[in-house]
Amino acid sequence: MKKGNLYVVSAPSGCGKGTILAEILKKNTNLFLSVSATTRCPREGEVDGVNYYYISEEEFKSEIESGGMLEYAQYCGNFYGTPKKKVLEKLNKGIDVILEIETIGAMQVKEAMKEAVLIFILPPSVAELRRRLNKRGTEEQEVIDIRVKEAVEEIKRAVNYDYVMMNDELENAINDFEAILKASKLTIENNKNMIGKVLENA
Amino acid sequence: MKKGNLYVVSAPSGCGKGTILAEILKKNTNLFLSVSATTRCPREGEVDGVNYYYISEEEFKSEIESGGMLEYAQYCGNFYGTPKKKVLEKLNKGIDVILEIETIGAMQVKEAMKEAVLIFILPPSVAELRRRLNKRGTEEQEVIDIRVKEAVEEIKRAVNYDYVMMNDELENAINDFEAILKASKLTIENNKNMIGKVLENA
Repeated sequence: MKKGNLYVVSAPSGCGKGTILAEILKKNTNLFLSVSATTRCPREGEVDGVNYYYISEEEFKSEIESGGMLEYAQYCGNFYGTPKKKVLEKLNKGIDVILEIETIGAMQVKEAMKEAVLIFILPPSVAELRRRLNKRGTEEQEVIDIRVKEAVEEIKRAVNYDYVMMNDELENAINDFEAILKASKLTIENNKNMIGKVLENA
Repeated sequence: MKKGNLYVVSAPSGCGKGTILAEILKKNTNLFLSVSATTRCPREGEVDGVNYYYISEEEFKSEIESGGMLEYAQYCGNFYGTPKKKVLEKLNKGIDVILEIETIGAMQVKEAMKEAVLIFILPPSVAELRRRLNKRGTEEQEVIDIRVKEAVEEIKRAVNYDYVMMNDELENAINDFEAILKASKLTIENNKNMIGKVLENA
């Protein structure tokens, strides 16, 4: 059976990544969104196994040591990572998997699995990103400053991705994302078997 | 200004390449289909500059010597090739160019222009290809045998392409082709400038 594709999606906070992925997942039933593990406590409304798998630092570290994490990073004193087992299970069943992770983790995944397709979602500009974050009105100016600074660092790492797309207009962004998914299924790396099949009994 | 993309499309006779390209060109106004040059005589109904540029063998050879051909091949005693000048002109104006050429020429283009995107259109099977050629009813069995043999050789070279897509259902094939066009505009190679622009004044 043909293995699924692994997609890694990164975007700074405020780029509409969540909205794009929700639409994509609605339309594509052969896509599985991986759930990350974290050592931070669940926030109100968050559900174990939906938003994150909430595990202890001991469990997390033991997973790292046994090679159970595809990627991980420490952020504000907590660990975040992608449990490898479920991802590989899905891929082996021919299901495509999306990891929604930050840029450092993305580089680890590319290192471990060269065939992973890395997609970076850009804001139209850093100024626009700041405007969007301000508009939410949920955070202090200081926090927004930090987020913008982080965003700039993440955007700089977009050069290491396979695809970059801009979320300027949501509908266009969704179309771009779908084109990347579709085209990445048509690469020669994914279809050497198909050529053999066409030539069968020739 | 951002340069256009160069696409090379190959498919054995009977794979519906012409129909797919006609639809794609209708929908995409920023695409230019390159017209090849040939030393063979125009057939009835063919128009110079539309089907081919009809030139003499002397002219053709002098173009080869002066480096004016992006690729060329000899076939049944005649030369066929892609005049380089027009292609480069369009690319430099930001227009995407499609070359509809056979596999040997495609390899020459990839050699000369690494950034070219090579797309191979497969038939569902060689048996189906034979069926389609028979259905046309315009050719002797012997000629069909030769075409099928050529098709097999061409399909074997599809492993050197960037993308392979199957023309099983026309509508799907057109969608696949469009996804490849769109996604190839979103690769990091084509968008390093965009990252710089997003970061401007950050």
